[in-house]
Amino acid sequence: MGDDCAILRTPSGQGAQELLVTTDFCLEGRHFRRDWHSAASVGHRTLARGLSDLAAMGAKPLAAFLSLALPHSAARDPRWLDGFLDGLLALAGRFQVPLAGGDTSESPCDQILADIILIGTAPAGRALRRSGASGGVPSRPGVQVQPGDRLYCTGALGGAAAELAALEAAPTRFRRAQPDGSHPHLFPEPRLAVGQALLRRGLATACIDMSDGLSTDLAHLCTASGVAAEVDLDQLPLHPLAAALDQRAQIQALLHGGEDYELLFTAAPSIKVPRSIAGVPVHRIGRMVPARKNRPQMTLCMGEDRFELQPHGWEHLR
Amino acid sequence: MGDDCAILRTPSGQGAQELLVTTDFCLEGRHFRRDWHSAASVGHRTLARGLSDLAAMGAKPLAAFLSLALPHSAARDPRWLDGFLDGLLALAGRFQVPLAGGDTSESPCDQILADIILIGTAPAGRALRRSGASGGVPSRPGVQVQPGDRLYCTGALGGAAAELAALEAAPTRFRRAQPDGSHPHLFPEPRLAVGQALLRRGLATACIDMSDGLSTDLAHLCTASGVAAEVDLDQLPLHPLAAALDQRAQIQALLHGGEDYELLFTAAPSIKVPRSIAGVPVHRIGRMVPARKNRPQMTLCMGEDRFELQPHGWEHLR
Repeated sequence: MGDDCAILRTPSGQGAQELLVTTDFCLEGRHFRRDWHSAASVGHRTLARGLSDLAAMGAKPLAAFLSLALPHSAARDPRWLDGFLDGLLALAGRFQVPLAGGDTSESPCDQILADIILIGTAPAGRALRRSGASGGVPSRPGVQVQPGDRLYCTGALGGAAAELAALEAAPTRFRRAQPDGSHPHLFPEPRLAVGQALLRRGLATACIDMSDGLSTDLAHLCTASGVAAEVDLDQLPLHPLAAALDQRAQIQALLHGGEDYELLFTAAPSIKVPRSIAGVPVHRIGRMVPARKNRPQMTLCMGEDRFELQPHGWEHLR
Repeated sequence: MGDDCAILRTPSGQGAQELLVTTDFCLEGRHFRRDWHSAASVGHRTLARGLSDLAAMGAKPLAAFLSLALPHSAARDPRWLDGFLDGLLALAGRFQVPLAGGDTSESPCDQILADIILIGTAPAGRALRRSGASGGVPSRPGVQVQPGDRLYCTGALGGAAAELAALEAAPTRFRRAQPDGSHPHLFPEPRLAVGQALLRRGLATACIDMSDGLSTDLAHLCTASGVAAEVDLDQLPLHPLAAALDQRAQIQALLHGGEDYELLFTAAPSIKVPRSIAGVPVHRIGRMVPARKNRPQMTLCMGEDRFELQPHGWEHLR
């Protein structure tokens, strides 16, 4: 830092590496509210969004960059910036990601504006992808999502949606929440160790993080890989915070609740996927099936019933 | 693109490289105005800011990333986004920089918000720096700004400030301006080829780009290198657009006008610096002198007179 650019030295002695880069806005009024989220939660969530993108590809974080614009109302209160940086740097410290640079400005409006940039590394041609395809790298010809592959997710689903609903009902109740693993919305946990293990151990054919919710992110995976999916509703791991919801809201949270930042991945049926990876539970929640014309891209199985699962919705199949 | 991160392969066969990373906000109301700047100018300026940071370090651009949030008022008019991308991609094409990814969002306010991220490469330990110091790389022990080094700048100064003043006086006059090299404010020219030549030919001991104006950026260089500077006012290259200003405004534009994005660099007196590099004129504008207590960090020489030059100001020395 201190020059026009930050200088990064890529790790050596690990064979050819490629760079993974992701940028994510965290904008007040879109991604957080100052009256709902503590400054520490905003800092944590800002970095977690970027780290989760690296986790989805099995990458190791190399450095983070932050562009941050504060409006007069936030700049006047140094505690906000301190709290934000505390939250961001605590998470960065746990994953040993240096905050290597960025930009600061005064916001042109009354909203806080953050943009987080993460740079990571992965062995060349081996980064986990939504399609399973290796981007034409000859050393990885066999990896491809196939019908018959099994569908897995990490952790539990619906927790972030349930906590967000609780936050909406009582915004002040959560002001003192801490990143202790029990706040899936306020302090989500990027699954970096799981993603890295999936890559290192060659377990997954494709992977994505669930930032938008199962239905939306599974659709991305199906579209990228050209394969359809069936999901077993009774196999979906419900987060304890979502257990208090009524049944319809539970299903809504499981299928469409965003920001859980769990990983969704596929594995060949010949692969033995452990029940827990890097200390995180792993659940088999469905299977990949051939994509067929006039058949849904995603099917939800509930006992004998079949529903067409759509991003953010579902409907009973004839 | 299309995965959670973009995958970059770093150039091989060029020896050990390091990565240079820079992020720059381009926010409506701070960095541009929709009623003054065409969409193409905003796109060009957004990318030029990042490219100029790479130029200052002698780096080659590897990829650009863009986070862009449009308010409803701009999203409603697809011509704005088209014009913005046309401007950005025309400049990217000229320098062969792929736009490799980024993020989009709806702006939480009525302002357009852009954050540009540039990643470049330079031979390990050889990137040009403000301090001249090589960051502890043993292969480059001799490079350090020294008293006696000469001070140079590229191109001409004050053009961007003069064009901005003209824009303020008649905002609609410039709606059809094109990136033809004659619009230093609307379509600034990042000096990538010059920076790369300075690095490759070992000409410079330190370098910075003039985004904030000569007085501010020279202060950064002096502070980073621990050396003071003397600037000869009559050697400063005045941009033709600034020639129409009155004498006081001319001096103001030369010394403090920002956003010219010319390079400011130092070279040892034993080095023969060409009068033009990569087709861009190079001017010797002063010299580095020992930093002394109670003596100005920057001195402006006008004939027999000496002034203390301060960031954004100057005053007569006793």
